[in-house]
This record gives sequence, C-alpha cells and structure tokens, in this order.
Amino acid sequence: MNYKSSVHLTKGHHSSFIGDDFLLQSEPAKLLYHDYAKNLPIIDYHNHLSASAIAGNKKFSTITEIWLKDDHYKWRAMRALGIDEHCITGTAGDEEKFNCWAAALPQLIRNPLFHWSQMELHDPFGIDEYLTAATAGKIYKACNELLQQDGFSTQGLLRHFKVEVVGTTDDPCDDLQAHQHLAVQSLPFKMVPSFRPDKVFQVHSPEQHHPYIERLTFVSNTEIKDIESLLEALQKRVDYFHQHGCRVADHGLLQMPLPARRSKELDTNFEKYLAHKHISDTSWPQQFAGFILAELCKMYHARGWVQQFHLGAMRNLNTRLFSLLGADAGTDSIGDHLQAERMAAFFDHLNGQDKLAKTILYNLHPGLNEVFATMAGNFNDGTCKGKIQYGPGWWFLDQKGGIEKQMNALSEMGVISTFIGMTTDSRSFLSYSRHDYFRRILCNLFGREMANGLLPNDEQWIGGIIRQICYENAKAYFDF
Amino acid sequence: MNYKSSVHLTKGHHSSFIGDDFLLQSEPAKLLYHDYAKNLPIIDYHNHLSASAIAGNKKFSTITEIWLKDDHYKWRAMRALGIDEHCITGTAGDEEKFNCWAAALPQLIRNPLFHWSQMELHDPFGIDEYLTAATAGKIYKACNELLQQDGFSTQGLLRHFKVEVVGTTDDPCDDLQAHQHLAVQSLPFKMVPSFRPDKVFQVHSPEQHHPYIERLTFVSNTEIKDIESLLEALQKRVDYFHQHGCRVADHGLLQMPLPARRSKELDTNFEKYLAHKHISDTSWPQQFAGFILAELCKMYHARGWVQQFHLGAMRNLNTRLFSLLGADAGTDSIGDHLQAERMAAFFDHLNGQDKLAKTILYNLHPGLNEVFATMAGNFNDGTCKGKIQYGPGWWFLDQKGGIEKQMNALSEMGVISTFIGMTTDSRSFLSYSRHDYFRRILCNLFGREMANGLLPNDEQWIGGIIRQICYENAKAYFDF
Amino acid sequence: MNYKSSVHLTKGHHSSFIGDDFLLQSEPAKLLYHDYAKNLPIIDYHNHLSASAIAGNKKFSTITEIWLKDDHYKWRAMRALGIDEHCITGTAGDEEKFNCWAAALPQLIRNPLFHWSQMELHDPFGIDEYLTAATAGKIYKACNELLQQDGFSTQGLLRHFKVEVVGTTDDPCDDLQAHQHLAVQSLPFKMVPSFRPDKVFQVHSPEQHHPYIERLTFVSNTEIKDIESLLEALQKRVDYFHQHGCRVADHGLLQMPLPARRSKELDTNFEKYLAHKHISDTSWPQQFAGFILAELCKMYHARGWVQQFHLGAMRNLNTRLFSLLGADAGTDSIGDHLQAERMAAFFDHLNGQDKLAKTILYNLHPGLNEVFATMAGNFNDGTCKGKIQYGPGWWFLDQKGGIEKQMNALSEMGVISTFIGMTTDSRSFLSYSRHDYFRRILCNLFGREMANGLLPNDEQWIGGIIRQICYENAKAYFDF
Repeated sequence: MNYKSSVHLTKGHHSSFIGDDFLLQSEPAKLLYHDYAKNLPIIDYHNHLSASAIAGNKKFSTITEIWLKDDHYKWRAMRALGIDEHCITGTAGDEEKFNCWAAALPQLIRNPLFHWSQMELHDPFGIDEYLTAATAGKIYKACNELLQQDGFSTQGLLRHFKVEVVGTTDDPCDDLQAHQHLAVQSLPFKMVPSFRPDKVFQVHSPEQHHPYIERLTFVSNTEIKDIESLLEALQKRVDYFHQHGCRVADHGLLQMPLPARRSKELDTNFEKYLAHKHISDTSWPQQFAGFILAELCKMYHARGWVQQFHLGAMRNLNTRLFSLLGADAGTDSIGDHLQAERMAAFFDHLNGQDKLAKTILYNLHPGLNEVFATMAGNFNDGTCKGKIQYGPGWWFLDQKGGIEKQMNALSEMGVISTFIGMTTDSRSFLSYSRHDYFRRILCNLFGREMANGLLPNDEQWIGGIIRQICYENAKAYFDF
Repeated sequence: MNYKSSVHLTKGHHSSFIGDDFLLQSEPAKLLYHDYAKNLPIIDYHNHLSASAIAGNKKFSTITEIWLKDDHYKWRAMRALGIDEHCITGTAGDEEKFNCWAAALPQLIRNPLFHWSQMELHDPFGIDEYLTAATAGKIYKACNELLQQDGFSTQGLLRHFKVEVVGTTDDPCDDLQAHQHLAVQSLPFKMVPSFRPDKVFQVHSPEQHHPYIERLTFVSNTEIKDIESLLEALQKRVDYFHQHGCRVADHGLLQMPLPARRSKELDTNFEKYLAHKHISDTSWPQQFAGFILAELCKMYHARGWVQQFHLGAMRNLNTRLFSLLGADAGTDSIGDHLQAERMAAFFDHLNGQDKLAKTILYNLHPGLNEVFATMAGNFNDGTCKGKIQYGPGWWFLDQKGGIEKQMNALSEMGVISTFIGMTTDSRSFLSYSRHDYFRRILCNLFGREMANGLLPNDEQWIGGIIRQICYENAKAYFDF
Repeated sequence: MNYKSSVHLTKGHHSSFIGDDFLLQSEPAKLLYHDYAKNLPIIDYHNHLSASAIAGNKKFSTITEIWLKDDHYKWRAMRALGIDEHCITGTAGDEEKFNCWAAALPQLIRNPLFHWSQMELHDPFGIDEYLTAATAGKIYKACNELLQQDGFSTQGLLRHFKVEVVGTTDDPCDDLQAHQHLAVQSLPFKMVPSFRPDKVFQVHSPEQHHPYIERLTFVSNTEIKDIESLLEALQKRVDYFHQHGCRVADHGLLQMPLPARRSKELDTNFEKYLAHKHISDTSWPQQFAGFILAELCKMYHARGWVQQFHLGAMRNLNTRLFSLLGADAGTDSIGDHLQAERMAAFFDHLNGQDKLAKTILYNLHPGLNEVFATMAGNFNDGTCKGKIQYGPGWWFLDQKGGIEKQMNALSEMGVISTFIGMTTDSRSFLSYSRHDYFRRILCNLFGREMANGLLPNDEQWIGGIIRQICYENAKAYFDF
C-alpha cells in the first residue's frame, strides 16, 4: 500500500517534528519503542467507531468529514479561540471549515490536539508539514486525494494500523446487523460489540425513557411490565449480544450507584413509573439504578464478560448549545464528585457473592487517580492477572500528562505489568495513531528510569513488560 | 534612574543566584525569555494595592514597612519557624522585625518566599547577596536608603516595573477618590478600580452586614428596604464604578452559589432580615446569594465588564489569632469543597440567557485544576478569544510548582495561547517581580519542550504565543 | 558484625542496581547524601513493630517469616498478578511462598515493593542480585542462614540500622510489659510506646466495643458507667503510658470528628448505650467521638505529648477476604472524603482554649496534599519550630512519587526545613532501609535544584537543612 499523494509536499526544516524518535528522550526509550512496542498489533477494546461504516467499508469524501465532523474536542478548542460556530458545526462548507481549523492549529500547542493532528497527518497521510493557514489549501487537496484510495477506507485504515480487534459501543436494543455482516467476511480484524445499557437507567427523563422501554420490549420480545420482566428482557439482550461476539459491557456514570436490594417498594415504584411516567419517590431512581446495575453485573459475570465503568463525566453542561447540537457537542467537564465509598460498596456487594466480573475502572478526575488505583487493588482475587483494571487515561486525560499520571498512579499503587493498556475511545478512524502516542509515552517513561538507574537496565526484562502492556495483556484479558 | 545604594554590597560567589538566566534551564527557554518576554509591559489586572498610596505617591520609611508590614505569607512562615508573635505582628521595632525575618529566610528554601525575597532584593534594590542574620544590618540600611529615592515611591516602582495598568480591588461603597485623583494626572500607567461586592453577601454576620447595608444606602442614595431597592442601589454603584474606569468585578467565595430564582419567599425573608437582623430560614442566605450574584453578573454583562471568581479559600481559621489581628493574618487554607456542580449550574444559568460576561475562574485547590480547566471550556462561545479564562495560580499556588501545574492543566484541557497570564494579586509594591518570576517559568516550560521536540523548535511561533500570554492577550481581553 | 553468608552470591552485571548512588541523579545530590544524610541515626517515631519481639530479641526462622508473613503490601501485589491465595496467606510452606514471591517480584517494577525489596536484600543481607524465580532458591538459603546470626535478631537489626528510638503503637489497655522489660536493659536504642485509642471510638460495633470497655474498666480499675468515668479511665491510661515513656498519641480516622460539646443528651445516650448495647440516636456516635477525642487531646496537651492523626484510609473493603483473614489483609484504599472543614473546626476548637498539643497530620489522599500542608500552617503559634507537622508520605504514598509530592507540597505551602522527616510506619524489621530510601529521595530533590540554580549551591547551608530533616528536627520535636 503506497500512501503517497501526487500533491508534492515539501519536507522542510520542520519535517522532523513527528520523527522516528518523537517523544523518546533517552536511548533506552528509543530501544524499547523501536524493538518492542512499535510493530505490535492493536486490540482496541473500547471505541465509538461506527459499526456500519466499518461493515460498509466507507470512504470519506473530504478530510473535513473524517477529521472535523464529529470531533467535539476540536470544536471546543475552536470556540476557545473565538471562532464562530458557523465554521465549527454550522453551515460553512468543508473547505472553509478545514481552513478555520488549519488557522487554529498553531495556536493549540501544548494541547493534545496539536500532537494528535500532526501525528495523524504524518500517519496515515505521510504529511510532515505543519498544518497552518498557509499550508491549508495544499494539505486539504492532498488529504482528499488520498482519502479516495482503498487504503483510506475504514477497513483500509484498520488494516494499516494493524488493528486486530475493534470493540464498538452499542445499545442493548441494537440489532448488531453490521457486526453480523462483518462476521462472515474474511478480514484481518474482528469487530465485536460492547453492551452499553446507559439508557436503561435514564428514568429521570421519562419522555425519552418510556419509548426506550418500548423499544426494549420490542427487540427482546418481552413485555416489560415490572422489574422481573425488565430483567428478563435485559438477560435476553445480554444473550443476544453474547451470541454475536460481545464479551464486554460498558457504562457511563457520574458515580457508581450504591448497591440496592430488591424490595416491594422498588417493584411498586417501577410499576407506578411505567404506568404514570413520573417519579414520586425521589430516592427510587438511585435504588433502581443500584439494583438493576448489580443484576446486570451478575449477568456479565455469568457470561465471563469484562465490565467497564467510565466514571465522573459531567455532560452537556451548556444547555444552550445542547439544545442546538445535542449531546457530544464539546460542553462536558471533569466532575469532582466523590467516588470511593460508592465504588467500594458496589464492588464489595458483587464480590461478596462471588459474582464480580473482570472490571475496568476509568477515572476522569486526575485528582482521584490514586483513589481509583487503590480501589482496583481491593478486589483482585488471584483468579487471573489484573482482574480489576484501573483503565487508561480517558477523554480529557488522554494526553502526555494524563497518560503519565495514570501510569504513575497505577505503578505506584498497583502493578503496571498487568495493565491492559490503551484503547482509543474515539469516534475517528484517524485516532489509531493515539496507540502510537501511548506507546511512545510508555517507552519514554520506562526508558528514562532505565537510564536513571531507577529500573533495571535490562531491555529484555523491561521490553517484555512493554509488550505485555501494549498487546499481550489485553489479548489474554479479553475473551474475544 | 539609578538604583545604586551608597552602601557597598559585596557581590560574592553567590551573586549569580538570581542571575540573568534564573529558572531558565534550556537554550530555547533563555531565548524565549530574553527576546520575547522580559521587556514587555505589565497589565496587572488584579491586585490589592492601596489606591491612595498610589495616588499620594507614597514613600516608605523602612524596608520593614514596605516588605513585612502587611505580608501574611511571611508571618505564617515565621510562625512555623517558632518565632514569637512579638517580632512578627507585635510591638518589636522595624529593625528587630527585619532581623527576625532575615534570620528566618535561609530556612525558607523551597518556599516561594525565598525566591520572591531574593528576586525583590535583586530588583529593584540591586542587592544580590543572600539575606541572612549576618547580612541583615547592611541590607536593612541599604534598602532604607534606597527607599527614600524617588524611584522607590509607589509611582516610581510602578514606572520601574513598566506597569501599564494597576487594577485595584474596591468595595462597592468606595468613593474611588484616589482613582479620580490619579485619572487627571499624566502618568505612564492607569489605575482602574475593580468592583468587589463580597460584603453584600455576608448576611451570616448581621452585626457587620446591617451597617454595611446602611452605608450602601447612603452612598447610592437609595433606601434599601427590599430586594428591588437593593438591586437598584447595586446598579447605581456599578454605574458609578463604570464611570470611574472600572471594567472588572471580583468575588471571593468558598463555592459558587447555586443560581436562585426570585420568589416571594426570597423577598419576604430579606425584608424580615432587614427588620429583625436575624435569619430564620436557614436556606435563605444561599438563595439570596444565588439570586443577587446572578443579578450582579447580568449588570456586569450589560456593561461589558470582566467578572472574576476566586473560589475555595477557607479564611481566618485560627479564631484566636483572628480576634487579635483580624482578617488576612495568615491563617487561611485551601479548601476541599466541591466546586464543579455549582460552577456548571451558575454559568449555565447566565449563558442560557445570553448574559454571561467574560469570566476568570481562579482555583485554589490544585487537586481541582483539571476540573476548573474543563469547566471554563464549556462556556466559550466564539465571541472573543478565551472568553472564559482559567486564571493564573493564585495565593498558595503562586510558586513554580503551582504555576506550572496551572499552565499544564490549562494547556492540556484548554488553549493556553488564549491565556491572559499573570496578575500579582498582592498587597505589596515589591511583588511586581512576580511577573518576572511567572515569565521565566513560562519560558522555561515552553523552552524545555522545544528542546525536547515536544514543541516546534520555531522561536517566532512559540515566542509569539509567549508574548500573547505575557501581555497581548490581557491587553485585548480587558476594556481598560 | 559481618553480614556475609557462606552461600556464594554472584555479583553480576546487575550488581550496581542498588549502588552507592542509587536515586542520586546529580552531583550535589550525591554530596548531600554521602556527606550529610547517610550516616545519621534514625528516630523512628511511629511504627507497628512488635514490642515483645524486640524485648525478646526474637530471631526469625526464615526470610518468609520476617518478610512475607505480615506484609499485606506484598499480598495485594501478588493477588493482582493472579497468584492463588494458597501461596500468599494460605497453607503453602515457607519456601513455596517465597518462591511465589520471587517469581512475582520482576513483574513489580515501578511499584515501591520492587525498590524496597532489592534494597532490603542489599542491606542487611548483602545480596545484590535480582530476586527472580531463577535466583529464589539460592537467595532463600542465603537469607535463612544469615537470619540465624545475632546481627539479624530484632535488636541486632535495630543496632545495624542505627535506630535510636523505636516508637511502637499500643492500645490504651496494653500493659506495656515489653517496654518495661526493655527499659531496664542497657541498649543503644530506646523503645517507647504510643497511645492509640482507636478502639475507644468503635461504638458502631457494640459486640466488639463492649468487651473493650470491660477491658478498659479492668486495666484502669475504674468502673465505666458514664462519660465521667470513661474520661477518668482514659486519664489513668494516659498517666500510665506517660510513666512508661510514652510521649506520643496516634489516631487512625477516616475524617476528624467535628468537635462536640458535653451535653445531657451525650451523657444519656452513652449510658443507654452501655446498658442496651445499641445506638438509638444516629448522630450520637459522631458527637461521642468529637467530644471524647477533644478531651483526650487536652490530656495529651497537658502531658506535653505529640498527637498524630492518620486520616483518610478506607479499611477492609473486601468483606469476603476480611472475614477470612481479618484486618490488615491488603484490601484497603485511599478515600476521597472531605477533610478540610473538619480539621479546621477541630484544631481551632483546641487552639481557642490554648490546648492544642504538637500535632502531626498524615494524609493518605495525594489530591489533598496542599489542603493538608496549608491546614497545618494555620495553627503554628511560635512556641516551637514546626509545631503542626504535615507528616511524611504514608502507606500508599511511601514511594518516590508520593514522597516527592509530599515534600513539594510541604515546601511550597509550608516550611520544609522544620519537617521531622521519615518514620517507617511498618510491621517489618527490614523496613528500616526505607529511611535510606527517603534520605536518597530527599537529597536527590534538593540536589537537583542546587544543580539547576533553584537552590543556593551551598552545601553547608543545604546540607544543614538535610540534617535537620533526617534527624535533628525529630530529636528536638519529641520529648523521648
């Protein structure tokens, strides 16, 4: 596959910015990266890629479509620079939007968007120039041309980045048609769904939740009229997902709910809620969440799945923009909610019944890194390596500083050699270079300590652990 | 202006401690500092300098008066060293107090007081020796002599440090006489007031609050008998401040209040409070704060002001010392109060009505840096660059570590090129060297990454951003 | 004393890992460590060593007994690696357990256990090889042989590490027999008890608390039938401990209680509780804790003791493992509980009555380091140097990163030259190498800043402060 565009791109004195040794600041770091990390395949166990775009082997018409259209990170940064919404999510054309972005990028130094963007231009586009207002036109043309090549289709990109597994994120009501479609093809990668039942818990918005329950009723062929039938419907969907290769669940929660027992009140309140579409007992939604989530977790455990919890994101905080653009518009924040008591109670509840599945805890608040790292350590039980994972730096934390802080907390409070490493958690097919970013940062961190005498200067020993973190641990952890 | 004292000060082997390249640990850092940052003027948009001392072009009789008299940072450090209060805030003479401080300083290494103090001796006093018990006598004499020169008057110091704007902090009841006095003079700097209505909210202390309301009644010529007339009085003071050059408001709050609606209860409770000087409904003070603050914020927005919020300081925690010395005695702390939900609700409330003024959020709890950095990003709306600012490291955080952490969080979660940079927030005319401190730390941070290949090694590009942060952004942001 | 084993241990190319300059990354760091820190005696003011094992000058039969038997840090790490409980706390033999541990250790790089373990093998065992599955057998044999030498008895190890004071942790009901036994011997170190009354507050578990109150009744010869007699019994135990050399109290608390006044309700509720062994008023336990703890603190103050508070640990979070193994089984976590308001209220309460003893605050949540550092600074009163200490990195924070963060927060927000430095807080006689670890990290931190021009490059000045932190401050602070 030759990724060269016919548009000539000067490689001037800046060409070395994303060079072979980008981010690698010591000799051992370079050695670890080049000899151990660089060429490993990718198990991308959690992302938000479109399953149908993969199944359909979609091509993108412009770099704007693949790069800017769904990227609320970029939108947010452009708003901070005072760029008008017209050029961000508005009616401006693709080239105008790209030009705005190009003019913005040089002002985004030290934000991960700068590194990510230049890395993405470097690979897969082979462009080593800085993207600026001056180079925008040329780069726009070059990228668009390349995007028409087969190597730049969704499947082409996955092949290019040596992706072995793509773990999409799917609603329990999804029919997984795209996954079925792909399963029968002979491809070098596997696409597996994840079960993300967040909508099941949104009883605070009955106007959205009731139609959702109706949809769940329909797809599960189970009339949901009480707690019992709700659980039955969910079990059927877990079974359906399992049949179609799902081995992972995921949840986005501000905080873990406290585990709750089944009670008459809980049942009665749910039945009232179904009948009247409104909540009378204000403590009920939490009890509902605590009970239903624990029951789901038991289903995951019974199936041998991995369960993921993304905790602490405050979403859609700008109501005005939310009403214009909907969710994922770039107005979300890191919350400072208390997490420890609730995690402890919930996981101890499941562990006490020996029904705690393998678990990945994702933390969004770096001030709580050590809280999460130590919480994970309480529920390892010797049944497998790294049963409870403190997951990789996520969303706002997926940059050099955040990745290093997560790794340091995990190292100091846990056992980083058991870490299953990076996942993109992205909506973009170009984000795969973030695995390369992660691997460079990882090797740099370990390499520096080898150089400084804090780690054994033994490349095979440390390189072996690098390999585990980049690939082998995830391979062993998931039952894909 | 020649700042040399007639007292001979040996520049021994220590003379290079605050040298030209102090804090600059790479070649690009030196280049950025010397060629881009060093000589820029200062827009000191928030401080606690005495407006009348500036208007009167006050001179200081001793280094103790200008350096130790109001500096609760130094008091606190001396108490930690076991120095008796007599020599700190007590009846000891100026030279005795200075000697105590001189003996303390060598024990304060790694505290910012050590760097600040030596920098302040270096500039403006031209003293490069370490201040110790041994050098105290000589330095005391030299400084006092210099302080009698015109270059060391308040205005002389402001000129010396190239200060363009001094933003003082003023109570809504202040007559701004000093500001008026200065406005008619021809000076190389501008002194502008800030509107800081903290006392309006202190209904928990009716014995202080009632006289304050009376004073507000008097200066606004508006009888405050209900919510309506309170708002009218405040609007008059906002107008008055605006007429006298004010373009900035400021608030010191433990947490943002939740926004509150006008209600009959709110009105009735305020009227009862005015009549009976006590609070019956315990939830009322929060509602009062939430409503009145939001109304003030709308006034600021209408006037095109910038609003500042200093969040998270716990004040006067040592009651015994507070009763002896009053506020600002050095017994304050960083709080661990939850901030995110309240900020989100308050700013979304204003933003939803399109009445959110430019805003600077100051955080005192470094564990929440990322929470603040991401919160600011939710309410940028493309109307101007960096509309919502995550403000510079403040109070306990105004040292190398704190400044770097704030810059890293802002860089990683926001857009540091939009940052309006440093403000002294100090009571001392000698604190202007903290702008130099900030600039060195800034250049060191960016320069190191240029040296390491994390930033483009392009001095004009990065130097341009340095200039924005040190001066140009603030210049454009404020309507001074 | 010759610590050489007859078993020949190859010192291969790895022999330099724990070399003379381990962790010392600059020339000034090496100089500070070797010339100022290294040879100082140790005042280990807080640990969990067995007083009777010291009094009896116990020898250990195997390295497993001294190293693995009580070390829940190691247990936790082994569980994370998927090792079966059989080999951790189960019925496996000593050599099998050691082999499991040896196989685990190379996977624990970047966790402090790796550095600690290799340091402990280096000193006192003189073993410089890496412990791995391959070297396990040889090292097991060598260590066991050495452990039979007199230099490896409990007292032998304390002598070897130049320990001057061992501060054990003792229940108020303890008879301190071991301390009495040792007091009459002529030894180069002193063993002093600490008063740790945690069990007094555990009214939430009446089934354990009632027998405890009976025991306290017995040892104090004071029938506990109300608050008054409880205080009397506690005062007697404080007196008893004081007679036996105790000068320090200690408390492990999730959060400080709010200070509470004596009230009829408080008395009545305690009497009801004594009579009926159950709690009717849910707010009572907090009031009880707030009142009794403040009364104890006044007793400490009257005696001139130092009081310690270890805040923020969530304990025994894995109920299943707790029911099998009891407390201290390695299922504890860092909590994210709010600490500031409660600390402020409690210490201000005592300070207001001039009854605040010297205090050491230990923080377990690194996100709150700055909160703790600033809180300590509010209650220094000039009576002695560093009266209120922000104590050293503790438990999960006792590694390079945690130690550096604590020192940085203390430096930036307080006065690190007043710091009383390290204490092992360990159950193991081999943990004394952690003082060496701490000293190296301390010298490295200060030395780097000397090298970079952030600190005066004056070895006597900085070396003097190093000595204070490593030894002299603790010597002056405690009345041992």
